[in-house]
Amino acid sequence: MASLSQQLPPPPPPPTRYAVALFPGFQALDVFGPVDILNMLSKSRSLELSVLSTTPEPVCTKSGTSSHSIGQQVVPTHTFRDCPDDIEVLLVPGGTGTRDQRSVQAVVDFVRERYPKLRYLLTVCTGSVVVSMAGVLDGRRATSNKRAWDWVTSHGPAVQWVRHARWVTDGNIWTASGISAGIDMMYAFIENQYGEAVATDLAQAAEYVRNTDPNDDPFA
Amino acid sequence: MASLSQQLPPPPPPPTRYAVALFPGFQALDVFGPVDILNMLSKSRSLELSVLSTTPEPVCTKSGTSSHSIGQQVVPTHTFRDCPDDIEVLLVPGGTGTRDQRSVQAVVDFVRERYPKLRYLLTVCTGSVVVSMAGVLDGRRATSNKRAWDWVTSHGPAVQWVRHARWVTDGNIWTASGISAGIDMMYAFIENQYGEAVATDLAQAAEYVRNTDPNDDPFA
Repeated sequence: MASLSQQLPPPPPPPTRYAVALFPGFQALDVFGPVDILNMLSKSRSLELSVLSTTPEPVCTKSGTSSHSIGQQVVPTHTFRDCPDDIEVLLVPGGTGTRDQRSVQAVVDFVRERYPKLRYLLTVCTGSVVVSMAGVLDGRRATSNKRAWDWVTSHGPAVQWVRHARWVTDGNIWTASGISAGIDMMYAFIENQYGEAVATDLAQAAEYVRNTDPNDDPFA
Repeated sequence: MASLSQQLPPPPPPPTRYAVALFPGFQALDVFGPVDILNMLSKSRSLELSVLSTTPEPVCTKSGTSSHSIGQQVVPTHTFRDCPDDIEVLLVPGGTGTRDQRSVQAVVDFVRERYPKLRYLLTVCTGSVVVSMAGVLDGRRATSNKRAWDWVTSHGPAVQWVRHARWVTDGNIWTASGISAGIDMMYAFIENQYGEAVATDLAQAAEYVRNTDPNDDPFA
């Protein structure tokens, strides 16, 4: 008689095809905190990262409606329309642009269309509000930025918003709290997918002191 | 008789004009960790940030010589040649590109020319190696990435390289250790220049747990 381990199918290999959805007024660290971990991981593994926007034009961290006096521009690799079919993990950042429906509508539409084909959906900060607009968080636990909590929870009435959390996982959706929490969530995701040794090595290479406890939230 | 406080000149106002020097193969978080703190600060203060490169073309975090399989492209606002005359603070990141003299020579030349006019020079990770090539660290204490320490200390024989440090200040030059250390250094710089309340508020807004002790280095 075959043992249990022989009867189980092998676990799927960890993801290699990532995408991040940009919009005017995205928060720079919501993107580059997690993405730079992928940059480091991509030194030892072949990864793909599609940087998505509505058009091929550079996308600015400062949106027309934001109160910032400075901003930086990042160049997309693909539009939402020509995004590769086989992306496995989609990251949605937050930022002041999430307050402008016109800025994020294309992301909402893309998440609604693509979520059924994704292996994982990750959000940072008010990125969870954006994906809630696509309905994919209905009935799920999720977190978001704590300073914007009243605004956050005015969205997604069917979402179980969790205030006290550094990040929350529910099924294949991972939502991080404000800005820097995306870094801790991404290391946790790396650990979950590629193993603890890989995550620990990447954090040490980046000289980053991880918060490994999703319930340890000093900002709730 | 006038009191001592009346005799002293008022302290200079905190800086408002920043620049960051990009080169092919810069480390994304070395730039966007500190710069996103400035983005947040610029919600309440009018700041300027010049994003510098050799040409106006986008600059990629993946250089020709790097082993990364992915990279992101950032658009400069100015070339080194047309950089505003009055920048006060220059940030120099590290990254795999620092290993390629052709990638960083323009940064070295720019630092050598501009340092005498700067109020502050800040580096993250192996950015300190780049500025050491301009000679501005000679006789000074500085730190850098700990995993690259042997390579780092093969440069700048007149630099007093400090291994055990999250960041080091010597005169008007601030050098951070590897990658994530740039975030702690930038909050410390903000505290030094704009006051503790401003730095604390920005860190809480970003839900970032600061390391406020430059000598607390778990990675040395």
